[in-house]
Amino acid sequence: MEEWLRFSVCYWHSFRGTGADPFGQATIKRNWDDGTETIENYKRRLEAAFEFFTKLGVKYWTFHDRDISPEGQTLEETNRNLDEMSDLALNLQRQTGVQLLWNTCNLFAHPRYSNGAATNPNAHVFAYAAAQVKKGLEIGQKLGAKNFVFWGGREGYSSLLNTDLNLEMSNMANFLRMALVYKKKIGFEGQLLIEPKPKEPTRHQYDYDAQTVMSFLRQFNLQNDFKLNIEPNHTTLAGHGYEHDVVMASTFGILGSIDANTGSPDLGWDTDQFPMDIRACTAVMLQVIRQGGVQPGGLNFDAKVRRESTNTKDLFIAHIAAMDSFARGLRNASKIVEDGIMARHLKERYISFESGFGLKICNGLTDLEECEEFIHQHGEPEMISGQQEHCEAIFNRYL
Amino acid sequence: MEEWLRFSVCYWHSFRGTGADPFGQATIKRNWDDGTETIENYKRRLEAAFEFFTKLGVKYWTFHDRDISPEGQTLEETNRNLDEMSDLALNLQRQTGVQLLWNTCNLFAHPRYSNGAATNPNAHVFAYAAAQVKKGLEIGQKLGAKNFVFWGGREGYSSLLNTDLNLEMSNMANFLRMALVYKKKIGFEGQLLIEPKPKEPTRHQYDYDAQTVMSFLRQFNLQNDFKLNIEPNHTTLAGHGYEHDVVMASTFGILGSIDANTGSPDLGWDTDQFPMDIRACTAVMLQVIRQGGVQPGGLNFDAKVRRESTNTKDLFIAHIAAMDSFARGLRNASKIVEDGIMARHLKERYISFESGFGLKICNGLTDLEECEEFIHQHGEPEMISGQQEHCEAIFNRYL
Amino acid sequence: MEEWLRFSVCYWHSFRGTGADPFGQATIKRNWDDGTETIENYKRRLEAAFEFFTKLGVKYWTFHDRDISPEGQTLEETNRNLDEMSDLALNLQRQTGVQLLWNTCNLFAHPRYSNGAATNPNAHVFAYAAAQVKKGLEIGQKLGAKNFVFWGGREGYSSLLNTDLNLEMSNMANFLRMALVYKKKIGFEGQLLIEPKPKEPTRHQYDYDAQTVMSFLRQFNLQNDFKLNIEPNHTTLAGHGYEHDVVMASTFGILGSIDANTGSPDLGWDTDQFPMDIRACTAVMLQVIRQGGVQPGGLNFDAKVRRESTNTKDLFIAHIAAMDSFARGLRNASKIVEDGIMARHLKERYISFESGFGLKICNGLTDLEECEEFIHQHGEPEMISGQQEHCEAIFNRYL
Amino acid sequence: MEEWLRFSVCYWHSFRGTGADPFGQATIKRNWDDGTETIENYKRRLEAAFEFFTKLGVKYWTFHDRDISPEGQTLEETNRNLDEMSDLALNLQRQTGVQLLWNTCNLFAHPRYSNGAATNPNAHVFAYAAAQVKKGLEIGQKLGAKNFVFWGGREGYSSLLNTDLNLEMSNMANFLRMALVYKKKIGFEGQLLIEPKPKEPTRHQYDYDAQTVMSFLRQFNLQNDFKLNIEPNHTTLAGHGYEHDVVMASTFGILGSIDANTGSPDLGWDTDQFPMDIRACTAVMLQVIRQGGVQPGGLNFDAKVRRESTNTKDLFIAHIAAMDSFARGLRNASKIVEDGIMARHLKERYISFESGFGLKICNGLTDLEECEEFIHQHGEPEMISGQQEHCEAIFNRYL
Repeated sequence: MEEWLRFSVCYWHSFRGTGADPFGQATIKRNWDDGTETIENYKRRLEAAFEFFTKLGVKYWTFHDRDISPEGQTLEETNRNLDEMSDLALNLQRQTGVQLLWNTCNLFAHPRYSNGAATNPNAHVFAYAAAQVKKGLEIGQKLGAKNFVFWGGREGYSSLLNTDLNLEMSNMANFLRMALVYKKKIGFEGQLLIEPKPKEPTRHQYDYDAQTVMSFLRQFNLQNDFKLNIEPNHTTLAGHGYEHDVVMASTFGILGSIDANTGSPDLGWDTDQFPMDIRACTAVMLQVIRQGGVQPGGLNFDAKVRRESTNTKDLFIAHIAAMDSFARGLRNASKIVEDGIMARHLKERYISFESGFGLKICNGLTDLEECEEFIHQHGEPEMISGQQEHCEAIFNRYL
Repeated sequence: MEEWLRFSVCYWHSFRGTGADPFGQATIKRNWDDGTETIENYKRRLEAAFEFFTKLGVKYWTFHDRDISPEGQTLEETNRNLDEMSDLALNLQRQTGVQLLWNTCNLFAHPRYSNGAATNPNAHVFAYAAAQVKKGLEIGQKLGAKNFVFWGGREGYSSLLNTDLNLEMSNMANFLRMALVYKKKIGFEGQLLIEPKPKEPTRHQYDYDAQTVMSFLRQFNLQNDFKLNIEPNHTTLAGHGYEHDVVMASTFGILGSIDANTGSPDLGWDTDQFPMDIRACTAVMLQVIRQGGVQPGGLNFDAKVRRESTNTKDLFIAHIAAMDSFARGLRNASKIVEDGIMARHLKERYISFESGFGLKICNGLTDLEECEEFIHQHGEPEMISGQQEHCEAIFNRYL
Repeated sequence: MEEWLRFSVCYWHSFRGTGADPFGQATIKRNWDDGTETIENYKRRLEAAFEFFTKLGVKYWTFHDRDISPEGQTLEETNRNLDEMSDLALNLQRQTGVQLLWNTCNLFAHPRYSNGAATNPNAHVFAYAAAQVKKGLEIGQKLGAKNFVFWGGREGYSSLLNTDLNLEMSNMANFLRMALVYKKKIGFEGQLLIEPKPKEPTRHQYDYDAQTVMSFLRQFNLQNDFKLNIEPNHTTLAGHGYEHDVVMASTFGILGSIDANTGSPDLGWDTDQFPMDIRACTAVMLQVIRQGGVQPGGLNFDAKVRRESTNTKDLFIAHIAAMDSFARGLRNASKIVEDGIMARHLKERYISFESGFGLKICNGLTDLEECEEFIHQHGEPEMISGQQEHCEAIFNRYL
Repeated sequence: MEEWLRFSVCYWHSFRGTGADPFGQATIKRNWDDGTETIENYKRRLEAAFEFFTKLGVKYWTFHDRDISPEGQTLEETNRNLDEMSDLALNLQRQTGVQLLWNTCNLFAHPRYSNGAATNPNAHVFAYAAAQVKKGLEIGQKLGAKNFVFWGGREGYSSLLNTDLNLEMSNMANFLRMALVYKKKIGFEGQLLIEPKPKEPTRHQYDYDAQTVMSFLRQFNLQNDFKLNIEPNHTTLAGHGYEHDVVMASTFGILGSIDANTGSPDLGWDTDQFPMDIRACTAVMLQVIRQGGVQPGGLNFDAKVRRESTNTKDLFIAHIAAMDSFARGLRNASKIVEDGIMARHLKERYISFESGFGLKICNGLTDLEECEEFIHQHGEPEMISGQQEHCEAIFNRYL
């Protein structure tokens, strides 16, 4: 069960989150965190995190560079901080056996990135972001990261009136290509992942959803070297059903990892709630089983306790309840796969494509004239029910 | 001005629309239409339409095969009807000088297509749709259509529980490839266009938005032979701003034509209203000017009078007011381009990429190490305002 | 269990629905329905419906006047048809024991109502709608309807440019008051219900959601004589969570009945799907238990099989699966109430209002000066966690 | 023109906004603000603000208590700070002639309010909020505020699982009643206003939209003492058209003031952009003219420059462009009213209610029987076009 559910705790929400929101101050205080920007505080926090991972029994973690280590006055100083903090992280990983599912660079919080990082109208900012990613890949390699994630929070536009789409997207491709080259050069073996999100903070993000990213990757010939890190809360913000992007990415062989969280369908922003809906967890795990697991990716809890959930206990409860939900999801999905009822249903629905004229269609071996001839011979097709409610009823039996 | 604004009247809404909606019966009765399915009624209606086009002074029209001609008992009979009706259409085109901007096949209204046409789980239905498109291309050629449109209203899924995404999308690609082959074979010179829409009637349509279709086309190596027919009401349903898909498609050289309409931003379905917002029309025309016109495409009024607008006069007023809106949009956009203030603003914003290190970035001639070195030398980039409000203020001066 | 789950089959979707949608023709053919407008066909259909109710074991049904009986050339003829059909309905009710949960008047489908019924700008139409409701109430009385529903599908506006909000809403109040007077006059004992919906078909409906209707009822002093028929699919279209309006209406003593269905959270229109989400059903049933049942209302399946679900078997499966979902919801909710864990949790959260200064606040017996004095004495309040994830985890244990 | 456009600058966005968002740090630095929490910095900032108001030529300002004055260790200290800062504000008002359109209490940012202020489950927090409002009213009186606003950012729920709706809303009513009593006691003459918002930060806010607040006010008999401060960006988040709540509130005599801003229709959160759409400004001003002006309210720019607009110049440009938009809106609206074409159109549409049977309906002097009799005599009503497109075309002529 463990290898199917490669759970990971994210460092940003669970150890840097304060409960602050656009309308309110920090509400969450942890006793290991004195709120200062000292290295000592950063270290104490990281040690607390590994204690938490261990107590929780979770085998993976994820982080942004700037979460584990303070930004200095210069890039050199920043990188030295990162060296020091990642030394500690490496030790803690060794002591606890907890591994790094993925790391990523925060290319969106600092003011320099307000107009974008790889898509900034200022070449100087592009260079800064590139330098930051260089270090990020090195840190990933040092810590044995299974993957490295790009989330382009500021890669998009606020207004078309001041944006050159073509130049920005072309630069974004150059940026990713440079990262790929460097990854190979240093021999970093983690999988590169792009995380789609439609909007927020930017009005429109270039990585809108799974298929938009696939379009981008193919346009710039990057499709063989990048996979996707799908977050269902982003999927729903893009106007799709919860599991849509997981299934779409997986279908086309490009699902790399999953940010296991949820939003509120009645809200139009990213709430990053802990996933508690067993039906949704089942749908996701069904696809994970179908693709034979999500390794080297996993199920990263990119989720935060509500800002009103101010007890440290809430942090445990939230993770445990989310793991339970996915475990129930896996059990349900596994039973669905074992029984094979739904699979047989599906196979039967498409049976006409397994032989005869249907097979020719599938194989691209026919043409419009033959099709017309087929209709002249066979006339009107028979109506076949889609049986959606029946499928839903069967699915419900497993919940 | 005329060539920039290649207005077209759509036959379905304006001559087959009855005002019926999911909660109400037909409200609109035209004195030339007796409501019967006779060829005589079809002919009278078509003649009335050409009278309307002429009185309105519009030079193009568009239609679905089943709108101009009744479906028969068999495909042969259906096609005979279409032959007879397209003979009349050809005569009317010659008499009036009105040309066919595009035609398309209705592959969504008949019950046989309820589970999809090219993506139907039944090969027999696929063949039927293919046969229908064969005739559609022939009719397009006969009538000198400038374009031929595919709108996949039922190509998508209602539920992932009963859907094989991979097979359906692969079949859709085969379908389009077969159409392309036949088009070339018969020498039809119209541009093939795909019209994205995210949902409705289907829960999820495979042609979600411009970039999703670009992804699909590249995945199946069809990107050189298809362009997009963008409908802003579909764009907003996909969660984008009004002009987003027009600009995105145009930026990547794939904008073929525009369905000039609008939705209500507070509604979650396709209302196909006449475009009356001069700001929106200006934004669209600005992009049309930038790409040097949308020929062989045009501005097709895929719009319907409200079902409460029951006078024939309303049909005239709606088209005239929409043409006025786009004409004002063109004038505004033309003035913006002539003045060059907004263009200079944009050029200046990206000036750092025109020389030096920025140019190396653009040309893909640098790497992460050089970028890091650049930052070590030049330090923190300067903050540069995005000046969005200033751009909006300038834009407003032209409205 | 039966009295908690007063299931009802709706006649419109299940016996008049054809699968037609704005982009497609009818797909669903029933062998008892020859598609004609003859009284014989209407009768055969009604008999088939009662056979269905009986086979399904459901004890209630609901209908619109125009569904069971054809509109005639004049109101007299229409009413005669209704008399004849309701005679048959009465017989079938007696034979089978199936009762009428509610009936309603269709004041939205006929073209005369395209600009509204009670809110039509033409007084003549208002009068027509009033006459229709008169007959509707008489029919309700004749058939022993437990309730009578008003759904104002066309009571709202398409554009503020041509609308007099004040006059329209005042007329709507007069209309409801007239119905109330007549109901009392004839001694009809059914509960009058208003069904909120935010939009569709109208751009804005005056009965937007539960609280909007409460506002309207209080404004026109109708709050004591009307309750609400809440449909969760309408609730979600208004931007709320699934159970919001059920809980809100129930909290203020105005929940009269429930239209048991669901939408797709990724779609912006009313899909009227069968409710299959056990979590959602549990949330609704929890509130129903809290208010001691929803009698004389019930759980009406205002839901339709997908237009692709063309087998008659699908109609059975859909209803059965939905009943199962609500039965599981009831069991879960009942266990939650019996255990009392969630109730104790809630009581403890608000304990400060049960005595002392908190009780004075609740009772409206204090003022700003006293509150200020209280803070001067007691200082800063302690932070208390909202424990949302804990509540979700507890809730999940019952699913 | 000045009295129709009582523009106001809001202090929070324009002098406390830093460009920070949920994904990014502060981007905006002003040379008069050293970022410290000292009284000196607070004073320098306030003086800069009045310099800005004066240079801009705006006659009103608005603020939250905590924006102009730092929170102390105790309520006493906090209030002393507020006394000192409001002394300065009073002087600045006298020197410049700038007046206070409204002030309000920030009952949402401090952690104590994370579970609500008036609706907090802890009575102690309720008391704190009440004490804060007491001081707020006193400060409003001291500064001659024309209005006092309640925005209940945290008055709502995150989850129904841990919420007692009934107790919370009843407490909210008690809270407002206490404020009303105290306002009268001290003789504060400002108008009390409630500002609706559907959600954000809270998942559901009790003051969802104009009609929800009207419902609440009537339920608790507060309708005569409170009016509404409508913000169109909140209106659109509630699923309505831009001007809906302005028109709805004004129609029922409860529109008190307007927060002049806009959102992006493609985004699901409050973007508080400067209003630049002349069509929207015209629609709002048309209603303002209809109700004879919005005094003692005004048009408060509850809008912030984008976080990428980092120049101080952007702050000027944004306000000037927004004022221009509303000035153009006023001119358009004024011309519409003078010409009277749209008014005559509307009058004619409802003409049937001005006499005869229609007038009886309006006056509530008829009943269902009379209506039925009317239909028996007059038969089917005539179809009358709603002419929406015509109205839109006329409206466009004024833009």
